[in-house]
Amino acid sequence: MRLAIDVMGGDQGPHAIIAGSAKAVVEHPGLEVILFGPRQQILAEISRLPQPLAAAASRLSARDASASIMPATTAAWALRRGHATSMAQMLRSVAEGEALAGVSAGNTAALVALSRRELGMIEGISRPAISTAIPARQGRRCYLLDLGANVDSPAHRLVDFALMGAAMAQCIDGTALPRVALLNVGAEATKGNASVREADRLLRQYASGQYASNSAFDYQGYAEGGDLFKGQLDVVVCDGFVGNAVLKASEGLTSMLVERVQMAFESRLSGRLASLLARPVLRRLKQELDPVRYNGASLLGLRGIVVKSHGSTHADGFYYAIQRALQEVEHNLPARIAGRWQAPSSDGDGARQP
Amino acid sequence: MRLAIDVMGGDQGPHAIIAGSAKAVVEHPGLEVILFGPRQQILAEISRLPQPLAAAASRLSARDASASIMPATTAAWALRRGHATSMAQMLRSVAEGEALAGVSAGNTAALVALSRRELGMIEGISRPAISTAIPARQGRRCYLLDLGANVDSPAHRLVDFALMGAAMAQCIDGTALPRVALLNVGAEATKGNASVREADRLLRQYASGQYASNSAFDYQGYAEGGDLFKGQLDVVVCDGFVGNAVLKASEGLTSMLVERVQMAFESRLSGRLASLLARPVLRRLKQELDPVRYNGASLLGLRGIVVKSHGSTHADGFYYAIQRALQEVEHNLPARIAGRWQAPSSDGDGARQP
Repeated sequence: MRLAIDVMGGDQGPHAIIAGSAKAVVEHPGLEVILFGPRQQILAEISRLPQPLAAAASRLSARDASASIMPATTAAWALRRGHATSMAQMLRSVAEGEALAGVSAGNTAALVALSRRELGMIEGISRPAISTAIPARQGRRCYLLDLGANVDSPAHRLVDFALMGAAMAQCIDGTALPRVALLNVGAEATKGNASVREADRLLRQYASGQYASNSAFDYQGYAEGGDLFKGQLDVVVCDGFVGNAVLKASEGLTSMLVERVQMAFESRLSGRLASLLARPVLRRLKQELDPVRYNGASLLGLRGIVVKSHGSTHADGFYYAIQRALQEVEHNLPARIAGRWQAPSSDGDGARQP
Repeated sequence: MRLAIDVMGGDQGPHAIIAGSAKAVVEHPGLEVILFGPRQQILAEISRLPQPLAAAASRLSARDASASIMPATTAAWALRRGHATSMAQMLRSVAEGEALAGVSAGNTAALVALSRRELGMIEGISRPAISTAIPARQGRRCYLLDLGANVDSPAHRLVDFALMGAAMAQCIDGTALPRVALLNVGAEATKGNASVREADRLLRQYASGQYASNSAFDYQGYAEGGDLFKGQLDVVVCDGFVGNAVLKASEGLTSMLVERVQMAFESRLSGRLASLLARPVLRRLKQELDPVRYNGASLLGLRGIVVKSHGSTHADGFYYAIQRALQEVEHNLPARIAGRWQAPSSDGDGARQP
């Protein structure tokens, strides 16, 4: 099993990404990792890995890429000039079958654009979507998509998101019949914009088996923002502008809340008691509730597996993004998604006809 | 000072709304409240008010309205058939100058539609926007609008939101030069949908004084979802679909987080210690961080003051919504907003010409 890793683009520099990769390699005996970026720097970082990470050195290799995608690079620039960057080289390694999946902490817009070009889309899907699992009540989680790869999503694209999200929940979490909902400003049929109302109509047709006998998800109609966290939905679908705003607001709110809880306890308890009682609880909570930083986000709809790690992630966060990529490899997620678009039904007429 | 209150539409029934109104009356010696709803029920509730709320009875009056707006009522139905409802009667009391402001915990879509018809819009503003103050770091707060009165907002409406939000921050919080930003999926100029990019262009013109010399806000460009909570912005503007999703997700997340913190502490501390230390801290935190439930949301752009209290609010929440209405009366918010659209500049050419 081989993965391709872009070491550039993370706010913490290649060091954190290489350390996270080494941790994954140490934990998975059959795993090899190709690191794309400035070769000398990568080799220097590998040689400085502390124990027990140093044991990974023989299964970490460096592939030289002197150029890299910058945080402010546009998708258009990446497509025109980004051919030699570490990100594009990493993606080609996946496209050519050298690696089974790729991971990058770099610029999302560039990663979406380059992934689409280098890997190509699954037939029937026009653009990638980004998804991550949001932690919900009772230890459950809910896949939210799109998180910003698409703004102004028309109805048929929202339907694509629903099918991809359902495949994700089935594949990664083993949910037999994922409960899928469409994000809206209220539960009533008259609410929302035209795309959402049309997507609702299409999803009801899918769920009733009008287009495919193996629709394989349970369409729940509209959901509101708060329903994401209730643990009663497996997939929530929305335009990328909305999903991005919700996800980033949730990250910001979690971080503020954890800080406030900490301050509140520290003002009531002695410093020592607070350290003993509150800090460990809060640290774990923050990790659990910061989905992208701790788990990465998947690019869906591609003919290959690409995971986006949070830009400001540390070694542990990058390690979790690699774990996600490995899970998707194990379950062959792209094939599962492709199956949704080409699934033969029992009556021989299961092709998707939106 | 007289307020008009719709006692119908709250999930807790008229009881909580009447108790919250009584609390406000007891606290404000000059305040009278007219309660709109089923007269017999209102009088019965007033007669059953416990001390010290019972002292409010002489300044609470009942105005009979046998019909009410239901949670699933559409705006169209409210406009066609809602004339005799408690909500419409309450709004007419404000429109006719009998009351200085109105408060309702009822159906938002109906409240927006009826407010617009009964009170009319400030010249130059086509539709009301809904706004509330989101708690941010360092005890600051940030007005977010729109929260769902408008979906698919074109650029000029986003500009209206910015001007109204700035007036709100100046008026209620005394912020001399409010820092206003436009919610987007990234800080780069190439990001976002067409309305947001066009609104950014218009707001840059406003801020540079091209249209009005007293633009009176400091335009900060794009913000991302997480910036809402950083305490560095006074107003964040977005389409109502996005704002509604962000606000409701924040409510749901806060409630889940507080529950998890509580569970985490209870599993580590003895029940008694947990009750003493954790519960009071968490209860206060939940109140601080649940803006709509605890403070209500303002309908802006109308020729009058209307506050929407959260549907599932208890007496205390309704009391805070009344407090917000009183603040807006005190600062004459509608006149301040109207001033933004008709402000004469020093060179006599300050009229808004977007």
